[in-house]
Parts: sequence; structure tokens; C-alpha cells
Amino acid sequence: MFAMLELLLIGIGTGNPDHLTREGERAIRAADLILIPRKGAEKSDLAGLREGIVAQVADTPPAIAHFDIPARRDDAGYLQGVEDWHDAIAERWQAAIAAHPGARHVALLIWGDPSLYDSSLRIAARLKPRPQVRVVPGITAVQALTAAHAIPVNDLGAPFVVTTGRRLRDGGWPEAADRVVVMLDGNCAFRDLEGTDLHIWWGAYVGMAEQILIAGRVSEVAERIVETRARARAEHGWIMDVYLLERRPG
Amino acid sequence: MFAMLELLLIGIGTGNPDHLTREGERAIRAADLILIPRKGAEKSDLAGLREGIVAQVADTPPAIAHFDIPARRDDAGYLQGVEDWHDAIAERWQAAIAAHPGARHVALLIWGDPSLYDSSLRIAARLKPRPQVRVVPGITAVQALTAAHAIPVNDLGAPFVVTTGRRLRDGGWPEAADRVVVMLDGNCAFRDLEGTDLHIWWGAYVGMAEQILIAGRVSEVAERIVETRARARAEHGWIMDVYLLERRPG
Ligand SMILES: C[S@@+](CC[C@H](N)C(=O)[O-])C[C@H]1O[C@@H](n2cnc3c(N)ncnc32)[C@H](O)[C@@H]1O
Ligand SMILES: C[S@@+](CC[C@H](N)C(=O)[O-])C[C@H]1O[C@@H](n2cnc3c(N)ncnc32)[C@H](O)[C@@H]1O
Repeated sequence: MFAMLELLLIGIGTGNPDHLTREGERAIRAADLILIPRKGAEKSDLAGLREGIVAQVADTPPAIAHFDIPARRDDAGYLQGVEDWHDAIAERWQAAIAAHPGARHVALLIWGDPSLYDSSLRIAARLKPRPQVRVVPGITAVQALTAAHAIPVNDLGAPFVVTTGRRLRDGGWPEAADRVVVMLDGNCAFRDLEGTDLHIWWGAYVGMAEQILIAGRVSEVAERIVETRARARAEHGWIMDVYLLERRPG
Repeated sequence: MFAMLELLLIGIGTGNPDHLTREGERAIRAADLILIPRKGAEKSDLAGLREGIVAQVADTPPAIAHFDIPARRDDAGYLQGVEDWHDAIAERWQAAIAAHPGARHVALLIWGDPSLYDSSLRIAARLKPRPQVRVVPGITAVQALTAAHAIPVNDLGAPFVVTTGRRLRDGGWPEAADRVVVMLDGNCAFRDLEGTDLHIWWGAYVGMAEQILIAGRVSEVAERIVETRARARAEHGWIMDVYLLERRPG
């Protein structure tokens, strides 16, 4: 009886509205309801970014439903905390969709790319009835970082690892590669690595007007990154940073 | 006396013109010369794609200079062959730029993202005088693959490795992670891996009209991928494919 709901997860890039692709623009125009988080992990300066993109792209703006991102609790352990949090967000999505029974194409504007360290696909899988999910890729923080430094992410024909600050801190250098991209690092884990000849390309707010870049040998620039990061974070009230490390044997 | 030449490396995505970002569109419009390869690794169906993108985006089309991609020779070893090849391509770029002495903003439209398994940054570094290089990120084959399958590239908070078919064949499974993205694999290296519980998400021509997707346990779908790949390659005269592997311990 009812047509299946289409859920569009649209990658919007990392804070630069010009990261949006033509496919992303079309998907926004095709949506009849857009779900926008009111607060949570992303800080207040960013709250207006999604509304701004929708207004720029769609002549007849689609309906917008705001939802609050619930708080995450870690008292039952990290992974259980994440599962419960995804359940709670799925309930908010479900409620917002239920409040717009006519909407057939519901969109979320996802920071970066929906495939990279992002929960939306896992949250979407919790919706009932299960929607048809369509993913529109977007520029990731990794790409915004390497573009800003004008460097390749890989050495010639060589592999690289993408990991998190937590994993780098707990597991040390991943042996599979000489280059490692680190995301989700609130603690500058690059300081704690063994080996003196590490090179770093670091960036905060990459792709945005506030962008800060520092590159050099870890032994020479680590202090400067730590200080710059703390200062920028205090000034803006939030920070997002990402970096590429290279180990140069010999 | 002379303003420095700006060289724009513009990521255009993986064959879907709608992968182009607004930043990419603006950069194409800002260029007064666009260098377009006539043949080489990319096959004839793709030759028109770049011209088509430029025509769609720029009301006043910029000058276009075609250049031939020289053949690569491996007789002095793989890495030396690549170095020589980059030297030779840099000479072609240099000649095309010299033939347009008025051009201040020279652009190349790069398949996928200029940072990922792409030579343009290394070739650009060979130009004399050294231009000011600006990189515009583009959707990669990895993102087009995960979007098409509607899957995250990483498991929850977990690392992943990006590597080549050659490295996977020579080095086996990279121990750093349970998920591995494989590019540049002409030989279906996933067939030769140990361990029965490997899962694969495979895609050819991802993002394009010709897109083919297969997913499942390697033990169950490997043959189908090998056959499908051979058939598609024969039919189109060329193929590009990429895949994500997951090892499921236990
Ligand atoms: C939850 S992940 C989301 C990643 C996103 N889906 C992507 O494709 O980039 C958030 C992490 O991405 C990185 N990040 C996102 N935007 C960034 C930006 N503008 N500048 C620097 N790092 C950024 C940071 O490492 C941050 O901790
Ligand atoms: C020289 S690399 C260039 C990668 C490109 N810079 C990117 O960002 O995706 C070429 C490899 O990318 C992958 N690739 C590029 N386009 C693709 C497509 N449309 N479908 C499948 N794989 C693709 C294949 O693994 C191919 O061997």
C-alpha cells in the first residue's frame, strides 16, 4: 500500500559549503523533508551551516525537522554506550519522520562522507519499517587535509592506514604501513609515539575559513601543534583536527 | 616580473559528472588553460568525459591543450619506470604550458581525488619554474564504492587499510586492521588470501552508468566476480574496479 520511504544520507564535506557535489545538490532538491540535528557533537558555529546549504541549493526549501541529539552515556562501557546512543538517535529520527507522514524522501546532511567514522548508516538500520537508504558521497576531512597541504595521502604505490586517536594511543604504530591518518583524536596522540623520525601534516578546521595547518618533524612541531590546538579550541569553543603521520625509516 | 603560475589539480570524481563539487566548478571557471590527456591508462569511452564537464560548467570555455601520455617502460624496474614516466609527462605539461604563454591559471581534471594513488602532485613538482599548486578534492573510488553498497568503510571506531592489488598479493593481509580497501588490482588478488571467513564488497565502474556491484563471502562470490570482471572488461574494452575486504575472526 505504502511506497517505501527513501532515506538520503548526503555527504556535505567538512564545513566548506563548496565541498557539496552536484549529486548532493540534486539530492537536497529531491528531498521533501530534511532532518537537522539541533546540537550535540557539533558546536554552535556549525548549527547554521546545514540550513545555509539547504537555503542556497533549494529554491523551494523542503520541510525541515530539527531533532535534539541525546547525550551519550559511557557508564555501561564504551561500545554499549554507543549502541544505546544510536538507539536513542534512531528514536528521534523515527519521531520526526512520523510527524511528517507525507514525506517520501527524507534527507540528512552528513558531515564529510557518510561512510567514514559516521553513525548514520548504523542508525538508519534501526528504523522500522526499514527505509531504502541512498548514500551520496562527500569530501572527507582526510581529503580536505591532503588538499590543503597539497600532498598525496599515500607514498608511491604504498598502503596507508586510517585510524582513530584512541586506537593509536592504545595500539601504537600500526605495522602495516609507513603512513597513518588519524581522526577523532582529542589528545594529540602523536606525542606518545616511539621513533624520532616521524613527520606530521596536521590541520584543524580543514576546508573552513578558520583552517590552521602545521607540518614538520614531530620532534620539532609537536609542542607548537599542542599549543595552537589549545588556543584555537579556547577561542572558538570547539575544534576538529586530523593529521597524517609518516614514518621515515633509516 | 612574471606572476607565478597557478596549477590547479581538480578532483572530478570517478566518472559520474555529478561527483563534481562546487569548488571544482569554480576552479574550472577560474582556469584559463586546461590540460587534457589524449590517451593512456584511461580508455576511449572516458576521453570525452573531461571535455563534457568543462563544456557543462564554463559558459566561456577556457583554452584546452591536449597532450599525449607517453608509454611507461618497466625495463629498468618498476619504481625507476614510474620515475621516468613522470619525467616524460612533466615534459608534455611543460610544453603545453609554454605554448600558451598568457595562461596564469592552468588546470588538470584529475580522476577521483588528486591525493589518492595519483601522480599529478609528483609530476607538478618537476615543473620549472615551480608553480603554485592548488588541490581541489574530489570523490574517490573508495567513496563511490561504499556509497553504492551503502556501507561504512570502517567498523565502529576501528582502523582500516588502503592498499593496492600488488601489495596485497606480495604482502598478504595487513595485520593492522580487519578491513582492507584494495585499488589498482588487475588480478583479483582477493582469491589468493588465506582464511575462509572473508567478506567482500566489490564494484566496477563505480559511480558510472556501467556500475556493477557484487557482495558476499569471498568463498561464495569470488568466481562470480572473476567471471563478471572478465566479461565486462571484454565488453567495454577496459575496466576499473575496487573492493573492500573484511576479515571476520571466529
Ligand atoms: C565523527 S568523525 C566524522 C568524519 C567525517 N564523516 C568525514 O568524512 O570526514 C569526526 C572527525 O573528523 C575529523 N574532521 C571532520 N571535519 C574536520 C575539519 N573540518 N577539520 C579537521 N578535522 C575534521 C576530525 O578528526 C574529527 O574528529
Ligand atoms: C590510479 S588509481 C586513481 C584513484 C583516484 N585518484 C581516486 O581518487 O579514486 C586507479 C584505481 O582507482 C580505482 N577506480 C578509479 N575509478 C574507479 C571506478 N569508477 N570504479 C572502480 N574503481 C575505480 C581502481 O581501483 C583503479 O585501479
